[in-house]
Order: sequence, then structure tokens, then C-alpha cells
Amino acid sequence: MSADTGFADLFAKGLPDPSPRFAGLPKYNFVGGHGDPRQVPVEELARAASNVLMREGDKLAWYGMSQGPQGYLGLRQFVCDKLGSHRAIKIVPDDVLITSGSGQSLELINRVFINPGDTVIVEELTYGAMVKKIRAAGAKIVGLPLDEQGLRTDALENILKDLKAKGVRAKYIYTIPTLQNPTGSVLPLERRQQTVALARAYGVPIFEDECYADLVWTLPNSPPALYALDPANTIHIGSFSKTLGPALRVGYAVASWEVLSRMIGCRTDGVPGAIDQMVVAEYFRTEFDAHIKKLTGTLREKHDVLIEALAKEFGTAVEITPTTGGIYLWVKLPDAVDVTKLFAPAAKAGVAFNPGPEWACDPNSSKSHMRLCYALPSKDEIREGVAQLARVCFEQTGIPARSGNVARA
Amino acid sequence: MSADTGFADLFAKGLPDPSPRFAGLPKYNFVGGHGDPRQVPVEELARAASNVLMREGDKLAWYGMSQGPQGYLGLRQFVCDKLGSHRAIKIVPDDVLITSGSGQSLELINRVFINPGDTVIVEELTYGAMVKKIRAAGAKIVGLPLDEQGLRTDALENILKDLKAKGVRAKYIYTIPTLQNPTGSVLPLERRQQTVALARAYGVPIFEDECYADLVWTLPNSPPALYALDPANTIHIGSFSKTLGPALRVGYAVASWEVLSRMIGCRTDGVPGAIDQMVVAEYFRTEFDAHIKKLTGTLREKHDVLIEALAKEFGTAVEITPTTGGIYLWVKLPDAVDVTKLFAPAAKAGVAFNPGPEWACDPNSSKSHMRLCYALPSKDEIREGVAQLARVCFEQTGIPARSGNVARA
Repeated sequence: MSADTGFADLFAKGLPDPSPRFAGLPKYNFVGGHGDPRQVPVEELARAASNVLMREGDKLAWYGMSQGPQGYLGLRQFVCDKLGSHRAIKIVPDDVLITSGSGQSLELINRVFINPGDTVIVEELTYGAMVKKIRAAGAKIVGLPLDEQGLRTDALENILKDLKAKGVRAKYIYTIPTLQNPTGSVLPLERRQQTVALARAYGVPIFEDECYADLVWTLPNSPPALYALDPANTIHIGSFSKTLGPALRVGYAVASWEVLSRMIGCRTDGVPGAIDQMVVAEYFRTEFDAHIKKLTGTLREKHDVLIEALAKEFGTAVEITPTTGGIYLWVKLPDAVDVTKLFAPAAKAGVAFNPGPEWACDPNSSKSHMRLCYALPSKDEIREGVAQLARVCFEQTGIPARSGNVARA
Repeated sequence: MSADTGFADLFAKGLPDPSPRFAGLPKYNFVGGHGDPRQVPVEELARAASNVLMREGDKLAWYGMSQGPQGYLGLRQFVCDKLGSHRAIKIVPDDVLITSGSGQSLELINRVFINPGDTVIVEELTYGAMVKKIRAAGAKIVGLPLDEQGLRTDALENILKDLKAKGVRAKYIYTIPTLQNPTGSVLPLERRQQTVALARAYGVPIFEDECYADLVWTLPNSPPALYALDPANTIHIGSFSKTLGPALRVGYAVASWEVLSRMIGCRTDGVPGAIDQMVVAEYFRTEFDAHIKKLTGTLREKHDVLIEALAKEFGTAVEITPTTGGIYLWVKLPDAVDVTKLFAPAAKAGVAFNPGPEWACDPNSSKSHMRLCYALPSKDEIREGVAQLARVCFEQTGIPARSGNVARA
């Protein structure tokens, strides 16, 4: 391996922190949007890959598969079909931009809209990486209050009114209305209608992130996407990371051409990998509904195992926000517990979780919360991991005093 | 399709130009690094995809396939093996970063090294997109003179001396030593040794782009990569776009960890698509040499067809820089021909080419040059396209006065 060489004084100023060396993954991994390795349909994907490569593999010879900068046409068509049948969104492939995961959509939309000093409205609890991206772009964040149904439209109206009075037009309202991250709520139809009406009245675009929306246990009965209610004032993004696997870097944005054309203009790495796109489209074209049914069935079982394990190990010391889908639970420990102080000792015991403060516009509001993702670990790992977490938590804080029928204190 | 909505006044200031709508590809396409669709080994790729997904498909459930931020281990191992056997580079997988094409490596390395006002040394004729990226990063470009063998080391020494006298330490020397783009030269061993010695003496890193190096017709006899001669002072990048297909977004960077860790720190989109990486590794692991032999055999035939067509259609009006591999020719027309004025009428006739000025640090130096890529078109399309180009050129400039045995004037 080559030695370091004194390049450091040549590096640009103001770089992000360098990456640490990869140190392997934790044994009990409740972190991040990993999927369930036992649920990857490897045989079906192998068959889909073989079929689509035999049929269209020669298109690999062209940049963008000879189909321009928006992505593989077969995948854009599938996105249209899926959003049409499941999310009440009526679009054509020209309205879709395939991106490298939905993460690249977040990145590009921030690039298109934000100059330093701009203001954006973001749900007070939200996807941690998005908060980081917005701060890196130099925007001010106004936190939008949530309740158990999702964003509070009364609060949204006050915020919009207040900003208007100050002469500020926010660049967007970022919301995860369907399986909110991290709370798991699904915004009811009436609030959706109020939200799009308010956004339109105040001239602020909606930035709707539906990257978990396919994992609602009762998907056909979910209320329509915000995009479906006001296409012209909404930017909609989604992903196949949660339904098939995040190692695939395949997400999408749906928006007017004036937005998509600027996103493409800002993109420097071309269309995402062709075979990933081809395989997703080929498999999901015929198998999406069956796949989702099977996947959410298993995820729901794991959800129940996690709830049971938390109840057993933490008893009354834990409050769980109920959900109807997804891959995570938003969990509150007593106020006396500062989860940021649990992080290192838990890691030492092989347990990783998302600390609440990283998932909040105001970190102090969530210092006793954690997000626990349950797709990756097996049921046994969930049980063991939660037991380890309770042990560490007790050692650090004296809470929980009792696990199962055993008093610790 | 959704209508435009007046978002435009919300866009950030200083955005790049928006993308135009995709308007299809030209009939005679001599532009860009496309491959030969007839040479994509679809059956073999289908088999490779099926095999690797059956064996390792469950890894799709993890971000980065559970192998960290540097990319799929099987592919990093193949990069080591290939660079070891063909480029005299001795490395291990920890020295390799998989990127979204070599284009993302260019992007990230510029990000890591360049602040506005910095100076970089770049071959006077070079990859057009790289010149654009450097200018966008705000760096000053010092053009490094070339001759028929590649970069001139006497000129490099003068430049380094001159910059040192001015108190300027360039951030890097960007060179394409093996199948230079656009001239096609292969730098001889002695000059390689002089180049690494000069770079080291003046404390300037070498940024070596070998994205075409696998396409030398006599690959086993190419001189070693610059990285092989001075690993500690060199950043080496390469790609599978030219050997398999640019719709695959799979390239790589080889450098010290102090550089790679900063590149990863600057990356916002995660590791490139997993299935693309898996298929490239699985196919090339056993078939690389046979594939390259077959591919370069066909490319060489097309190269000869293009030379013949240019001789037939342009006669003595064309000067061609000889090469020993790759997918393009650097072609000069008489000084009276300004290729930028040919571009639009040629496009109208279905012919696309890279205008010389876009491939030059000093655009004025190359206004009668064009880069003609020959991998994508068939042999008949090459002949017809060159005939169209000669016709358009004559109509616009009176040159060439004679094509084949027919006088036009």
C-alpha cells in the first residue's frame, strides 16, 4: 500500500472531513436504510438481468444507453406505471429523471434552489442526511411541527404567514408525507389537500420525498401523493433502495421540465449505472406488487419482534411512536437518558442506532430519542441487540431498572 | 406532462445552463467515447450477471454491499490484477476507489485539490470535459506542449522552473500518457522516467488519466504507467467505459489513502451501482484479455476504414496524427477551415464531430482540427459520414476541392 506523501498541503481549503477506513459493520445494526438480505430475490434478479441484457445489452455502448440524460426508458416507464397505479400520479417518461438513489435528487434539488442565506421549511423531525445537506448549502431551516398524523397544517400556515410578513419566500417545503422519517406517520388526505393549497397560496413549491412510501402495509389504501394533488407546484422523489436494495443506486425525481432540466445541468456524473436500472425495471415490471406484498409481510413481522423486544427489555421506560409500515421505529427513552452518551458504549457492545438529535432540525428536542431500523437484522439479532442496548443503557443511566422479569437495579 | 410553473425566480443564482430536451443521436456519430454496440458481449454479460447475482445478490441489501465506501471488493481486486499484469502497478484493493466513471474521479480530484486561483499544468491538447471542469473550479491552466510522442519533458521542466520562480506550486500535472486524448500518442519509457523525476523534484503530484490505455493494439508492450514509476507522487485513474461500455458508470482511482479518503469525503452519492460493478468484475475476471484482443482487432479495422475514407474524401487536404490504439483520430484540415463553422451544417447533414477548440487549453490553437471517434459507427457509416463531412466542408469552405477522383470545384 502506498505511503502518505505530503500532498496534504496541496489540498483545497474547506474540504469535508476525510473518510475513515472502513472498519466493518456492527453486529446489531439498527442504523440506516439497509434492506433485508434474506428478502433480496436473487434468483429472480438473476433471471431478469439475463433477460434484459440479452435483449438490450448492446445499448451499453452508448453514454446514457442512447436514450438521453434522463435515464433508461424502460425504468422511467415503470416509474410512471407504479406511480400511476399506487400514488395517483399521472405522468409520462419525459417527466421522470433517474438519479443515483434519491440522495442525488436531494443533492441536485438543493443545488438548483439554494443560495447561502435562503430559507427552507422542513419537518421538525426528518431525514438526517437532508438536514446536513441543507446546512452545507448554507440555508436557514424553519422547523415545521409534526403530530401523530404528520405535518401540522395550522403550523404550516403560521410559518408561511410569518415568513411573508418578513418578506421571505421559502425555497421549498420539504416533507415526507407517507411513512414520515423518522416518525412513520402517514398524512391524511384532508391535510394533504390543505398543504398543497397553502403552498400554492404562498407561492412555495412542495418538495415531497416518498422514498419509503412503497412500504405502507396497506399500500393500495394510502392517500394520494401530494404531487397527484398539485403536480405543477410539487417536486416528487422516490427510490428503489428500500424496496430492492440500497446498493443499487437507483432513485427518481418527478417534476416540471424547468426543474428537471436544471437538475440535469447541475449533474456531473451522467446517468446512473445502466445494468442497475435495467434490472430494476425488468424485475419490477411484472413482479412489483407480489414483491412488495412479500417484503412488507416480513418487515411487519420484524416490526412486531422489535416492539416486543423493546417492551420486554425497556418496559415502561420506552415510548414508541406507532406506524403502519416502513423499516424503522422512533423510540423515546426517559428525559434523563441522553442517547448521544449511549452511542459509544452501545457501539462497543456491537449495537448501532441513529441518535435522535441527528434526525431533528433542533437537535436538543430529541436528545432522548433514537431511530431503530429493523430491516437488516434477523429476528434473533433484533432480540439480542435490544437486550444489549438495554444493558448498556442501564449501565450508563440506571434505566431501565427492570428488563423482563429481572430487576437490574 | 406538467406545465412550467414560475419556479424560475426561486432558482439559485449562477446555475449551469439547463439541459436541452434529448433530441436523439446523430446518424453519423463521430462524437464522444461511445463504444461499438456490435462488440458488447451480451450473452457473456448475461451469464456473468446471472452467476454473480446468484452468488452475491444478497449483498444488495446493504449500502455499499456491506464492503464500505470504496466499492465492490471483487471489482477492486480485478482492478489490482489488471493493473498488475498490464500496467506494472502493484497495489491492493485498499488502494482502489471505484467511482461513477472516470469522470467522477476527475470531478473529485479537482474538488480535493483546487481552490479558485490555483494553478494546474495540463497537456495543451486534452480531454475537453476536463478543461471545462478545471475552468469551472476557477483554476489557471498552464498548457504543456506535446509532440508526436506525447508531453515534452523539456517544456515541462521550463514550466515547473518558471512557476517556481514566481512562487507558484501547481496543484498537479494532468497527463494522458497512454493513448493521449486527442492525439493518440503513447509516451516512451524514457520520457515517463523524466516526467516522474521532474514532478518529484518540484513537489507537484502527477494526475495520470489512463482511461483509454487498455485499447493499445500492442498492450503487453506498452511502457508502464507513471504510477508504477512513482506510486507515492501519482494519482492514477481509469475506466471500463471504453472497454465495455460507457452506459456502465464504472471507473476507478488509485492513490494514497490521504487522497482517496478526501475524495470519499467529498462524494455525496455513495458507491456506484452495485450490479454494474458486479457484472464488470465477474465478466472481466476471466475474459479480460480475450475481450480486449477481439475488441481492439475490430477497432483497428475501423481505424483503417476511417483513414481510408478521409484519404479518399479529403485527399491532401487532411493531416492525420498517427496512433497505435484507442477510438479516435486527431485530424487537421487546412488553416483556412474553421471547424466551429462546420459544426452546424455538418449536424444538419447528420454528422457530429468534436471541434478541435474544445479539446485544447488554447482554443485558437486548434480551430482547424477535429477529433473523430470511430468506435460507434459501422464501417459503412464511417464511409458515408466522412463523405457527408467532405461535402459539407466543401460547400462551406471550397475545401476539399476534390473527393476521390471527382473534382468538386
